[in-house]
Amino acid sequence: MPDESHDPARRSWIESANAPGCLFPIQNLPFGVFSRAGEMPRPGVAIGDEILDLAALERAGLLALDGAPVFAAPALDALMRRPRADWLAVRARLSGLLSAGEPALRDAHARDAMRVDRATARLHMPFTVAGFTDFYASREHATNVGTLFRGPEKALPPNWLHIPIGYNGRASSVVVSGTPVRRPLGQLKGAEDPAPRLGPCEKLDFELELGAIIGTASPMGQPITTAAAREAIFGYVLLNDWSARDIQMWEYQPLGPFQSKAFATSISPWIVTAAALEPFRVPGPEPALPLLPYLREDGSGNLDIELEVSLTPQGGAESVICRSNARGLYYSAAQQLAHHALGGCPMSSGDLLGSGTISGAGRGSEGSMLELTRNGAEPLRLADGTERRFLADGDRVALTGWCTGQGYRIGFGTCEGTVLPAAAPVW
Amino acid sequence: MPDESHDPARRSWIESANAPGCLFPIQNLPFGVFSRAGEMPRPGVAIGDEILDLAALERAGLLALDGAPVFAAPALDALMRRPRADWLAVRARLSGLLSAGEPALRDAHARDAMRVDRATARLHMPFTVAGFTDFYASREHATNVGTLFRGPEKALPPNWLHIPIGYNGRASSVVVSGTPVRRPLGQLKGAEDPAPRLGPCEKLDFELELGAIIGTASPMGQPITTAAAREAIFGYVLLNDWSARDIQMWEYQPLGPFQSKAFATSISPWIVTAAALEPFRVPGPEPALPLLPYLREDGSGNLDIELEVSLTPQGGAESVICRSNARGLYYSAAQQLAHHALGGCPMSSGDLLGSGTISGAGRGSEGSMLELTRNGAEPLRLADGTERRFLADGDRVALTGWCTGQGYRIGFGTCEGTVLPAAAPVW
Repeated sequence: MPDESHDPARRSWIESANAPGCLFPIQNLPFGVFSRAGEMPRPGVAIGDEILDLAALERAGLLALDGAPVFAAPALDALMRRPRADWLAVRARLSGLLSAGEPALRDAHARDAMRVDRATARLHMPFTVAGFTDFYASREHATNVGTLFRGPEKALPPNWLHIPIGYNGRASSVVVSGTPVRRPLGQLKGAEDPAPRLGPCEKLDFELELGAIIGTASPMGQPITTAAAREAIFGYVLLNDWSARDIQMWEYQPLGPFQSKAFATSISPWIVTAAALEPFRVPGPEPALPLLPYLREDGSGNLDIELEVSLTPQGGAESVICRSNARGLYYSAAQQLAHHALGGCPMSSGDLLGSGTISGAGRGSEGSMLELTRNGAEPLRLADGTERRFLADGDRVALTGWCTGQGYRIGFGTCEGTVLPAAAPVW
Repeated sequence: MPDESHDPARRSWIESANAPGCLFPIQNLPFGVFSRAGEMPRPGVAIGDEILDLAALERAGLLALDGAPVFAAPALDALMRRPRADWLAVRARLSGLLSAGEPALRDAHARDAMRVDRATARLHMPFTVAGFTDFYASREHATNVGTLFRGPEKALPPNWLHIPIGYNGRASSVVVSGTPVRRPLGQLKGAEDPAPRLGPCEKLDFELELGAIIGTASPMGQPITTAAAREAIFGYVLLNDWSARDIQMWEYQPLGPFQSKAFATSISPWIVTAAALEPFRVPGPEPALPLLPYLREDGSGNLDIELEVSLTPQGGAESVICRSNARGLYYSAAQQLAHHALGGCPMSSGDLLGSGTISGAGRGSEGSMLELTRNGAEPLRLADGTERRFLADGDRVALTGWCTGQGYRIGFGTCEGTVLPAAAPVW
């Protein structure tokens, strides 16, 4: 059966989905969890300016999946744990029900009760984060940061061209877009200071990343191929790995970043499925050195996603400060996942893998303040005339991303957060 | 009301609990999850040679806790999420019900159905691991490892005397004692090799640690004091942080250990409560440099727990290869937890904090093969006449620990695992 869900000519009977530039056309169909005031959160799919209530759709018997309900809980966990064939079946079914000319839902009695104006909905964490792992897959970013932290000679670590370097992050601090982010307290120590002091982070930063969400678990002790890894990925979100550069600089050796990354990681609320992104697969860069067999990937492992970061000071105007693209990442999410499972680490449904900061080669394509301002040495001038070396209290950082198809776009929505002042010390 | 649960004179009507040297006397009362063949796993408390079935005790109305049942699920999560006052109330109640002369349970009709011979029971993971963080709190271990990995000049990192260094581990690979541990595959590269190769780990190691289990959650953005941190800890287990030293050596810079630690972490099945360990609190070492205020701890933050590691080759005799004690750790679990929450990282009920390898100052007190054999340079001779530089397939590693009170001991049971050969490559 040919997959018609990507057909650029496909239109929906929900007219707002057919508007030029709409980020949620019928080719997208991303999953999220929403509620309106006084309602219980429940799964939905974004279509045009609306959300289709999947819990209601399932209760009405219009989804026709065997077994226990998958949309009855306030998270997408149950769908993600189902076999990949079910993910594709749900997508095909939704694409069918929403397509122009298909009457099953359009003419159903309960139709309007299942449609929610997106502008009136609050969006929640779409899934339960089982584990969060953050990678380091942009060669440009690794080179830029390595130069600032260790000097140009040691910029790219010797293992970097062989290993998709990553570290375990903190799952409990992954939050949905819109959650305010409190500036962390931490140990700060300048290179010349004799001892550290305790204080609010003075080099608060964002990191522009893509998050891959694992649907298919793998058992302990069993490596997986890159082909299996690609099929285990349920979908993608935008991810802001908020970072405290001064805390990081002092703490990160020898065991890696810890409190500098543990205070918040924001994700966009809509999970764009791997299926929706299939038309936007592109080959990654040719490896500079041969990769070990377990990391080799057939075909197009990367995704052509245009990315943008804006910064809006409190009461000020929005400035776009970074334009980048995920297509240049040196390691794909499938390669990262295959590496993650190589030693037998059991991967869980709900694991979130951050790509690492997505920086491009040119000025203005760097995905962090650290790089954009050369660790504060070259401040950014914003639209409201103020300057930034790092983030100020009240700053709103927003990531956006989209793929451009023939006559349509697949959008990720926005991943945004506003910086709150540090907590008062309790000592 | 004085706490009588530690009274050295207290005896149980379950006679095996009163035997000299018993590790589970009435002063201990550790919590676990057990089943017999064909039964559902459920919570229990170890007493003498038996397990008291807490699910049955609760159903019989003998626990008298308000609210929803806490022992109905196959994990201790519900109890751990209750307020600390409830942990203490359950302990006091169990201590009362089991004490000699107290008839409420001893003479109850259903009594025998609630008692299970420990030798016939299988033990399961006692709780759901929310997050796993591994610390590095033994100064002797950090110095030994630093010397081997970075040379004696850079042995102790500059931050070590200021920060309880830790990193996020992988919660999904924490397993209960008795689970076999498969030797991981990984990237291996000798110092002189031009490129890494793929193969089974050749330097498989154990790490002798104590695991602190968090009961009381703390919200995002809110630091906690060391006093609050100490009260948030529900209990302790022994923990073996299995390590692949060759994989670690090649992967760990710049973002820390990853696959070298992700294949398995074993814990002992009985959670010894913080309450049971109160009589064994001792002061930690005097800090060599002043600590920042948030890390200062009043009173006795450390625990006097004797520790032993044995190695048993397949078909061979058991050799004790390490004798150590937790009392010398430079940072306590409360200090580690206060540091963990400093930047606002939300801590969850079910978080597991590994102490770091517990090495002493003398030869034979090192808590890893890396240290015991000086990275393989000085092999250990075992009781069966064989030698070990690192662990061989079929080797069984067992950690044991106990506190010695006046006329009684508080035991942790055993944390053991046997090494399986590496998986066949799938490429």
